Amino acid sequence: MPTAIEFGAGLIGKLADHVKALSGTKVLIVADPGVVQAGVVDRLKKPLEEAGIPHLLFSEIEADPDIESVEKGTQIAKSQGCDLVVGVGGGSSLDIAKAIGLMLTNPGNIRDYVGINKVIHQGAPVIAVPTTAGTGSEVTIWSVMTDKKQKLKLSVGSPYNCPTLALCDPELTVSLPPHITAATGMDALTHALESYVNKATHPISEGLSIQAMKMISKSLRHAVVQGENVSARHDMLVASLIAAMAFNSTRLGLAHALALPLGAHFKIPHGTVNAILLPEVMQFNIIGNTSKYAEIARIFGEKTDHLSEREAAERSVHAIRQLKNDVGITQTLSDYGLEEKHLDMIVEEAMTSGNVPVNPRKPTLEDLKNICRAAMAK
Amino acid sequence: MPTAIEFGAGLIGKLADHVKALSGTKVLIVADPGVVQAGVVDRLKKPLEEAGIPHLLFSEIEADPDIESVEKGTQIAKSQGCDLVVGVGGGSSLDIAKAIGLMLTNPGNIRDYVGINKVIHQGAPVIAVPTTAGTGSEVTIWSVMTDKKQKLKLSVGSPYNCPTLALCDPELTVSLPPHITAATGMDALTHALESYVNKATHPISEGLSIQAMKMISKSLRHAVVQGENVSARHDMLVASLIAAMAFNSTRLGLAHALALPLGAHFKIPHGTVNAILLPEVMQFNIIGNTSKYAEIARIFGEKTDHLSEREAAERSVHAIRQLKNDVGITQTLSDYGLEEKHLDMIVEEAMTSGNVPVNPRKPTLEDLKNICRAAMAK
Ligand SMILES: [Fe+2]
Ligand SMILES: [Fe+2]
Repeated sequence: MPTAIEFGAGLIGKLADHVKALSGTKVLIVADPGVVQAGVVDRLKKPLEEAGIPHLLFSEIEADPDIESVEKGTQIAKSQGCDLVVGVGGGSSLDIAKAIGLMLTNPGNIRDYVGINKVIHQGAPVIAVPTTAGTGSEVTIWSVMTDKKQKLKLSVGSPYNCPTLALCDPELTVSLPPHITAATGMDALTHALESYVNKATHPISEGLSIQAMKMISKSLRHAVVQGENVSARHDMLVASLIAAMAFNSTRLGLAHALALPLGAHFKIPHGTVNAILLPEVMQFNIIGNTSKYAEIARIFGEKTDHLSEREAAERSVHAIRQLKNDVGITQTLSDYGLEEKHLDMIVEEAMTSGNVPVNPRKPTLEDLKNICRAAMAK
Repeated sequence: MPTAIEFGAGLIGKLADHVKALSGTKVLIVADPGVVQAGVVDRLKKPLEEAGIPHLLFSEIEADPDIESVEKGTQIAKSQGCDLVVGVGGGSSLDIAKAIGLMLTNPGNIRDYVGINKVIHQGAPVIAVPTTAGTGSEVTIWSVMTDKKQKLKLSVGSPYNCPTLALCDPELTVSLPPHITAATGMDALTHALESYVNKATHPISEGLSIQAMKMISKSLRHAVVQGENVSARHDMLVASLIAAMAFNSTRLGLAHALALPLGAHFKIPHGTVNAILLPEVMQFNIIGNTSKYAEIARIFGEKTDHLSEREAAERSVHAIRQLKNDVGITQTLSDYGLEEKHLDMIVEEAMTSGNVPVNPRKPTLEDLKNICRAAMAK
C-alpha cells in the first residue's frame, strides 16, 4: 500500500505543508455540499490561503456520485491548471477526488479503467481527508461510482488509485449524526469481517481484520450514542482505515456483492445495506469457515468456552445482529422497496461481482435470493 | 512500507521475470558462503542463466558482516556495471545486499548514513530472498553491520533501504538446523513482542504484532523439532515478516538495545542474545504495560481467567521462558564470557540505542546491569 498515513487531532491545519511537500502549485478541493456547509472546507482553505497556495472548489457531488462528476471535475482541474487534488468528505467525495487525480494523467475516460489493474499511469497527487469512519477510501485502491443512466455501480481498482497521503483527523468525525456513524461504521465492520473469512485472505490481512474488528467491537456503540466521545471516534477512524488495508488485497464477500446492485437500484446507503445483509450472509457462510466465525464471536465478546466450534460460530451471527440493532439499523430491505419481483435482476448483477469468487461458500442464484429474502423479512 | 511481497514454495524459479520487471540488466548476487555451499545460489543462478541475464556473485560476508563488505560489494557492482542486487541468506546477507543497493546511487560511504532517515536517494533495485525466518530484513528499513575495528554495531535505517521485492520461499528454510531455527525464531518473537509493548506502537502495528506472536506461539516449536514441517516453516517465515512490518514504524525495546553491544563484543548470535535477555527484560517492563503483558500471556496459551491482570502479566514471562527453553536456548550470558567487569561498557553503549526511549519502562544504567546480571545467572 503506497499511501502515507498521518493521524491526529488538528492535522488539517498543516495541509499547506503537505501540499508543498508534494510539489502542488494549485489545488482542486473536491467535497460534497454537506461537507462545505459543515464548514470543513473553510478549515482546509485557511492554511492554503495563509501559505498563498491557489485553490478552487469542486462540490458537484451527490451521495452516490455519478460518473459524470469525474469528467466535470477533471475538466475544471485541467482548464484551471490544478496539479494536486484534495478530497474531503465521506467515501463518495474521496472516490471522486481519487478518480479525478487519475484522469489528470491518464488518457480517455474513467469508464476505460473500470475493473482491476486497468489504470496505466500514476495519477496526480491526491490528499484524502476522511470525514466519516467507514469506506476507508483514504487508503484503498478502489473508487466506486454510479452510472445513473444505466443504474449501475462501477468500480475502478488500481494501486495508482491509492491516495498519496491520508490526513486523518478524528475531530472531523465528531459532528456526524448517529445514523451516519452507525451506517459507515457497519460498512467498516463488513470490510473487516468479509475480508477475514474469505478465500483470498492471508496472515497480514487477517491480523489487520482482527485488529479492526476488536476496535469496532469496543467503540462503534460509543461513537453512535456518545457522538462527542473523541476516543471512540478516534478508534472508529483507525478501525475503518485498518479494515480497508485488510481488504485492499483480498476483496470482500456476498454482502458487498449484493450491496452494490441494491444500493444502485433502491438508493439504500451503502453502509445500511451492508448492515442489513451482513447477519444473513454470515448465517449462509458459516459452514464455509466455521473456525473463523467462532473467532469473530469471541472478538465480539461472546462466551464460547462451553460451546462446540459450530455453536460458537453461530454466536457470531447473534453478536453482529445485536450490534446492528444497538446502533439503530432495524430497517429491512422491504422498507426500501425491494420486492420478490426484483430479485432476479439483483442476484444476476450481484453474481458478476469480483466479491463472489472469494466468498467462503459458493452461492447459487437461489442462495443469493434467499439471503435477500431473509434481509427483507422483519 | 514500499516493499512488494511474493510468498510461496518454488518462487525463486521466477527470479528472472522479476529482474526483468525491475529493468535489471546485470545482477549482483550477495550471499554468505554458507548459502552458497547449501546450493541455494545455484538455484537462483539457473533461471537467470536460462533468461540470459548476466550476473556475478559476491560472497565475502561473515556472520556479523563488517562494514567493509559493503564497500567491497559496491566497488564490484560499480566496476562490473551491475544495476540490480539480489540478496539471499539470513539477516546479514540481506542487510549487506540492501546497503550495497543504497551505495550504488548515494555518494560517499555507508558510514555517512548511520542513523535513521539519513539516506538521500532511492537505492538501486534490491530483491531480498530470505533463507531464515528471523530478522525480517526482507521488509525492514534497517541494515545492521559491524565495525570490527571499533567493535561497534552500526545501523542504517531509511525507507529507501527497504528492498524493492521480498521473494519468500519457505522451502529454502526447511534445511536450517534446529539451533538456527530457534535463535532466528526467537529474534522474530522479540521483534513482535518489543514492538507490541513499546511506547511508539499504534493500532496497525499492534494488529501485526499480535498476528506474528500467534503464529510463533503455534509454530516455532514445530519448526525446531520437525525441521521438515513445511507448514510450520511457512508460518515462521510469514511471522518473521509480519513482525518486521510491525516494528518498522515503532523500533523495539531493551532486549535489542542490549543485544547489539553484547553481540558485537561477545560474538553471541543476535537471536540467541535476544532470547536470553527477553524474559529478563519482560520481568523488568511488566509494570510499564501490564495489560499488554497479560494479553501476551493469553496469546501464548496461558489460562488467565482466574488471575488478576498483574498475575496474568507475570505468566507471560513464564510462557516465553518456557518457549526459549523448549527450543533449546538454555545458555546464559556468562557462557559467552560476559562478566561483571564488562557491564559498565555494555550498558553505556546500550543506553545510546534508539530502542531505549520507546521502551515501556525507563531504565537507569543500574537497571540495565541488573537485567544483564539476571541473564548471566543459571
Ligand atoms: Fe463497503
Ligand atoms: Fe532483531
